[in-house]
Amino acid sequence: MQRTQLGHMACSIARTMDVIGEWWTPLILRDLFVGLSRFDDLRRDLGIATNVLTDRLATLTEHGVVERRRYQDKPDRYEYLLTGKGRDLFGIVATLVRWGDRWEAEPDGPPMLMRHDDCGQVTAPVLTCEHCAGELRPDTVTGIAGPGGRIGPGTALIGPLLAARA
Amino acid sequence: MQRTQLGHMACSIARTMDVIGEWWTPLILRDLFVGLSRFDDLRRDLGIATNVLTDRLATLTEHGVVERRRYQDKPDRYEYLLTGKGRDLFGIVATLVRWGDRWEAEPDGPPMLMRHDDCGQVTAPVLTCEHCAGELRPDTVTGIAGPGGRIGPGTALIGPLLAARA
Repeated sequence: MQRTQLGHMACSIARTMDVIGEWWTPLILRDLFVGLSRFDDLRRDLGIATNVLTDRLATLTEHGVVERRRYQDKPDRYEYLLTGKGRDLFGIVATLVRWGDRWEAEPDGPPMLMRHDDCGQVTAPVLTCEHCAGELRPDTVTGIAGPGGRIGPGTALIGPLLAARA
Repeated sequence: MQRTQLGHMACSIARTMDVIGEWWTPLILRDLFVGLSRFDDLRRDLGIATNVLTDRLATLTEHGVVERRRYQDKPDRYEYLLTGKGRDLFGIVATLVRWGDRWEAEPDGPPMLMRHDDCGQVTAPVLTCEHCAGELRPDTVTGIAGPGGRIGPGTALIGPLLAARA
């Protein structure tokens, strides 16, 4: 099945999903953040088919999320490094981990812990406001129309709803 | 194509993706956070096929992310409301929006803005440490093995790597 392209919508979630929403991709990003980079290491870690891994890395490279670098020739071998755009996915990856830890962990507990090196504690991310530093919660954040908003496919009803709040 | 089930891995990202990783699901969650709830409103907003929307909502209901409620009978009509587990997905949704705004917006700018009602400012989320309130960044957070970690499919290499850091 061809994946449905959603990036034509005036929606930043749809556009983000077009880049990282394919099956397996969040796990590839996880491995890159943890420190793997070589094609063969990613393949062995995940147990993923070579053609699927090639395809996912091509999408990420095309969108500037990773940079491909040859680290050996004859035979050629490649590694994949997160760019600045790729490293900025950290918030998405960390919140995916956190939710799974909280709601889907097995009785043993979380598979991985996040240590904050600045304070040395095992931590979990809290979403805070870039202005007042208060916590952002669904009941204290209101979506309003932005300059790139429009009413169209994917925003047929919420377009007008967000505009009315702006 | 049947999606690949990844939730058997000792990985909170894989488990989260098994719940919300299907194509369209993040947009359905977006609509629920913005305030839509009725099946027909979701269908019209997204321009999604009825059977696909039914399938996605069934997955979310099954995992306790949304609760289905009949709001009319003869004919029966249903609405879908985020549970506590569902509302806790806010961090994931907000970071997806933020990344798309920053890296994939069209020249007009972000389609939607987030207003923090507590301070009144248009804001963006900053990930902070639950202990020291310092910012969490990829270079200041280290993944280490947790109690539920194991070496197996999906963690064949990073399992030992995380364990060596713990």
